[in-house]
Amino acid sequence: MLDPNEWFTEVVASDGAAFSLRVRDRLHAEQTPYQFIEIYDTEGFGKLMVIDGCTMLSTRENFLYHEMMSHPALYTHAAPRRVCIIGGGDCGTLREVLRHESVESAVQIDIDERVTRLAEQYFPELTESNADPRATLLFEDGVRWIEEAAPGSLDLIIVDSTDPVGPAEGLFTRDFYAQCERALAAGGILIQQSESPLYHVKILREMHEAMRGAGFDSTQTLCFPQTIYPSGWWSATMAGKGVALDRFRVEAAREKSFETQYYNAGIHQGALALPEFLRRALG
Amino acid sequence: MLDPNEWFTEVVASDGAAFSLRVRDRLHAEQTPYQFIEIYDTEGFGKLMVIDGCTMLSTRENFLYHEMMSHPALYTHAAPRRVCIIGGGDCGTLREVLRHESVESAVQIDIDERVTRLAEQYFPELTESNADPRATLLFEDGVRWIEEAAPGSLDLIIVDSTDPVGPAEGLFTRDFYAQCERALAAGGILIQQSESPLYHVKILREMHEAMRGAGFDSTQTLCFPQTIYPSGWWSATMAGKGVALDRFRVEAAREKSFETQYYNAGIHQGALALPEFLRRALG
Repeated sequence: MLDPNEWFTEVVASDGAAFSLRVRDRLHAEQTPYQFIEIYDTEGFGKLMVIDGCTMLSTRENFLYHEMMSHPALYTHAAPRRVCIIGGGDCGTLREVLRHESVESAVQIDIDERVTRLAEQYFPELTESNADPRATLLFEDGVRWIEEAAPGSLDLIIVDSTDPVGPAEGLFTRDFYAQCERALAAGGILIQQSESPLYHVKILREMHEAMRGAGFDSTQTLCFPQTIYPSGWWSATMAGKGVALDRFRVEAAREKSFETQYYNAGIHQGALALPEFLRRALG
Repeated sequence: MLDPNEWFTEVVASDGAAFSLRVRDRLHAEQTPYQFIEIYDTEGFGKLMVIDGCTMLSTRENFLYHEMMSHPALYTHAAPRRVCIIGGGDCGTLREVLRHESVESAVQIDIDERVTRLAEQYFPELTESNADPRATLLFEDGVRWIEEAAPGSLDLIIVDSTDPVGPAEGLFTRDFYAQCERALAAGGILIQQSESPLYHVKILREMHEAMRGAGFDSTQTLCFPQTIYPSGWWSATMAGKGVALDRFRVEAAREKSFETQYYNAGIHQGALALPEFLRRALG
């Protein structure tokens, strides 16, 4: 039916579903020390990055993910100055973070430098802010970096990782969250991509429990569309250190000085509303 | 890659994308006078109905669509009593409409009786309210039915149709909207499924223009996730006759007397918020 020479397909075996994009060409394929990275030229979605067989981002709709991994948390924090991004090697989240004038430093720590080098080549629009003097790009183990961070030295930690299997597994644990909680100043926020609201309710529930168990006093999941990820529907979960996560700086979001494609104050408010089944599942 | 004997695949050729569900069996296939209907037993989504090659509904996640095609419009109308559903032969929208105590009559007009008969067999939970004394099921041309409806005789028209090609084409025209406007009483609302916010911005823009051109004084698109439809992200568009569509009976929605899986007052409010790119496109 779908000729594998013409289509890239990601199968979600656990849910008996698959999503495919028609490709013109595979532009690159590489086994790094950490993962297998492919770049495709697609017919309808621009360039596509695939890691270990899972779609990571496409030119056409990565704005959904990158805007929702950054702006809601940044507008929830009272005055975010010191930001770190664990993972996020494509630099799309970093670009969005740097749009906020309050941000004084943004450190991106991705274990695999090749993700960033390939993003520079195939998604140059995402790396356009990498030379910002506030930005630091490190290529090392994010878990260790957080462990070594000084207590209270960060306002916002964004965990922009792959799924909780493989290299990113350690980023979904109570121990890691406890280190994040320690590294955050009062009023600080951790936000992490938290999989599909439809397929991964168990992961979501465990994440909330682990975050609370690690000392965070508030947690909040945000939902948003994400066409190329399993189910087409995705989430991010925030954990707060003495901060209400269901409120945000609405006026600042309404008067933001930069353009977005998805995010605005209404979208932010809407993303905070949990579907009934998820509200019940998360208690 | 995906064995066509094991997977049902819907290709969206215009966007170079495809979505597949793993199937255990094809339970039914039938060419009716209007369309080709298939029923599959899937591995992860329960039963699946396919019409002319397009996924229509699955057991697992039809609640997303049916709840969003009904409750937002019903809670936007001040006091909806007389409802008609054009299309909607699977009866899932009808079931949601009948949950509202204010509704005195709900007429479902689907041109193809076979959709309803197959729903009774394979999606019995959706047809469980068909014997409600307030419900009338007709199997005839919805366009003609609306043309013959008395002026001002309806409070809410729900167009729960297939895509704007084939039998449903006439439901996406200014002439049809003008007939709906005529059949609605003051304060009345038309709501229609309006395709993917990501893939079909042109259809959405033309729909708003046609609705306004037909005499409606307000229009409002709602967005919501819909895993098995193209892009995994879907929309419905409301047109109002002397009614603000960006407000609704919030207290009534908060205190609703029935259970939902997706809809609640927060979800309703959130669905009204348009993504930036769509807000710009719809002016």
